[in-house]
Amino acid sequence: MESLRVELGSRAYPIHIGVDLLARADLYKPHLDGGSAAIVTNEIVAPLLLSKVKRGLQGARITEIIVADGEQAKGWPTLEKILDDMFAARLGRDSLVVALGGGVVGDLAGFAAAIYQRGVDFIQVPTTLLAQVDSSVGGKTAINHALGKNMIGAFHQPRAVIADVAALDSLPDRELRAGLAEVIKHGVALDEPFTHWLEGNIEKLLARDRTALTYAVRRSCELKAAIVGADERESGARALLNFGHTFGHAIESGAGYGAWLHGEAVAAGMIMASELSLRLGILQKGDVARIRDLVRRAGLPVAGPALTPERMLELMAVDKKAAKGKVRFILLEGIGRAALRADPGADAVREAIVAALQ
Amino acid sequence: MESLRVELGSRAYPIHIGVDLLARADLYKPHLDGGSAAIVTNEIVAPLLLSKVKRGLQGARITEIIVADGEQAKGWPTLEKILDDMFAARLGRDSLVVALGGGVVGDLAGFAAAIYQRGVDFIQVPTTLLAQVDSSVGGKTAINHALGKNMIGAFHQPRAVIADVAALDSLPDRELRAGLAEVIKHGVALDEPFTHWLEGNIEKLLARDRTALTYAVRRSCELKAAIVGADERESGARALLNFGHTFGHAIESGAGYGAWLHGEAVAAGMIMASELSLRLGILQKGDVARIRDLVRRAGLPVAGPALTPERMLELMAVDKKAAKGKVRFILLEGIGRAALRADPGADAVREAIVAALQ
Repeated sequence: MESLRVELGSRAYPIHIGVDLLARADLYKPHLDGGSAAIVTNEIVAPLLLSKVKRGLQGARITEIIVADGEQAKGWPTLEKILDDMFAARLGRDSLVVALGGGVVGDLAGFAAAIYQRGVDFIQVPTTLLAQVDSSVGGKTAINHALGKNMIGAFHQPRAVIADVAALDSLPDRELRAGLAEVIKHGVALDEPFTHWLEGNIEKLLARDRTALTYAVRRSCELKAAIVGADERESGARALLNFGHTFGHAIESGAGYGAWLHGEAVAAGMIMASELSLRLGILQKGDVARIRDLVRRAGLPVAGPALTPERMLELMAVDKKAAKGKVRFILLEGIGRAALRADPGADAVREAIVAALQ
Repeated sequence: MESLRVELGSRAYPIHIGVDLLARADLYKPHLDGGSAAIVTNEIVAPLLLSKVKRGLQGARITEIIVADGEQAKGWPTLEKILDDMFAARLGRDSLVVALGGGVVGDLAGFAAAIYQRGVDFIQVPTTLLAQVDSSVGGKTAINHALGKNMIGAFHQPRAVIADVAALDSLPDRELRAGLAEVIKHGVALDEPFTHWLEGNIEKLLARDRTALTYAVRRSCELKAAIVGADERESGARALLNFGHTFGHAIESGAGYGAWLHGEAVAAGMIMASELSLRLGILQKGDVARIRDLVRRAGLPVAGPALTPERMLELMAVDKKAAKGKVRFILLEGIGRAALRADPGADAVREAIVAALQ
């Protein structure tokens, strides 16, 4: 097992990464002062992993809260159900919430923990690669609103993250690849040597080699933790983690939510952002080729869905309207060197979208 | 106008207290970066004061959100309506929420601001004495759950509090007195000289003398701000602000919510807590008499409703169960010297409840 730390003063917390961690009582114990815990998970994960986590929480009074699988569960009704179940179990302020599942469960359970009696402790136990390398770290929690994803939520840091790569055994291939998109994002946006490592190890990762997975999760978490520690509430550097996401969000919403997995949309979005960086003269052609190649080898899309550039621009403008600011593009000044750039103009964006298709 | 400051580092904020402040653009302007604001108020306050606040926000794009009056509005449906209206108005992260009303509006609007896009700025414009001296300061926001008051919420500090004593002109007498209960609490629990001042000025306050009201609000806010600055999340000293509240909550829930105003229940609760302190030998008989006298002169109840001591103990035990801890009693070691004491035993508590009735 390897352990990192997210440095956030009094709210600092460890990320444990390794194999067969879910049942390890020593990882939960420091956070079980009150002796009671609610495990929030979904109907897919529960039969596979719930018993392990229960073993890890041995001695505690446990409440199981099982929600539906999928993004459509990430709304008011499920949040209310989680809170109702916690109240029915008479959980006090000293109780612990354990989020066992992917990003949806982590966001839901984390948000419930944030607002239950004005905040109780929670632990993230991510069971998808996407959640292990991205959503479980950093304290963003939320539910969706009819007018947008993650629109209602809170910053609420977990007390610990337990990332067990053995839990990925049951993950469908498509979701594994979608998780790799965020791993690649961390390399391409923030760390050239890690990108180089990924180029040499992408087949091992796809074959679920546990040593390779442990390293990829660890390095991703290290990179994200450093940024979150410096900019918890996304006023600056944290925006760099959104590399590929401005295009990605437009792809997701244009294709209809659920048609493209988030990671797939981010993969194509990274290609568009790279092509845009090339057009603005800040990235070399050879770097774009390296990024394309890595994304393709990970089994991820390098082009967006059948949407015209005009439609993509429209979708990005909706995003802009909702955020009342400018469209934010995270561009590359080299592999591992992402930078925030002001609106580069519609023409360059249009060209980049077309180029990504080729 | 007088201005205090709640010292909370990067989240420090001013409290402005005075006469005719609601329409003063200079008080809102520093917080209107984004140029758009949502005013949340209720159907009673809106016709009286909304136009003034709109004048204060001149130049901003304003969304009015008017909710029902009363404690029963403080739940999920109203919270959802507020958030829906904010999304419908396309308010961005740089928008400002203005809470115009009493404690219910402040708690609802503050909580909506806490979770809208993971948190936007808000300003408290309290229009009841209770809200001006207590609930608008300190960042506690919440809604009720079927199983308890304020059970779902967040700590979210306002950017400013604007307490206009002229807004109290339309406050019913009974609510003015209920607000005075919390003013008296601040004196009796934390500040003997302020208690002395209250003994000399209680008639002026009941007559709504604006100079007296301004001083009472200011001193209450000063006392509360000092404690909140030292203990934002109620891990220590902040509990002292709950003087009278352990008994008070039992009275409120035993009498049926709404039958007793919160301040009325706190008033009788303070007498019980004083009698308990006397029985434990830490408070003098003469001090209990002073407190009784002041509460009575403020037109507030010195005895609880027709509940047996056994029923009161039961109700406090429910509170205990919900909080998974011990019943917390804030007792007095003298006027102005509140202290947290471990469970003093059921016999002394029973005696204190009976004594308060006499």
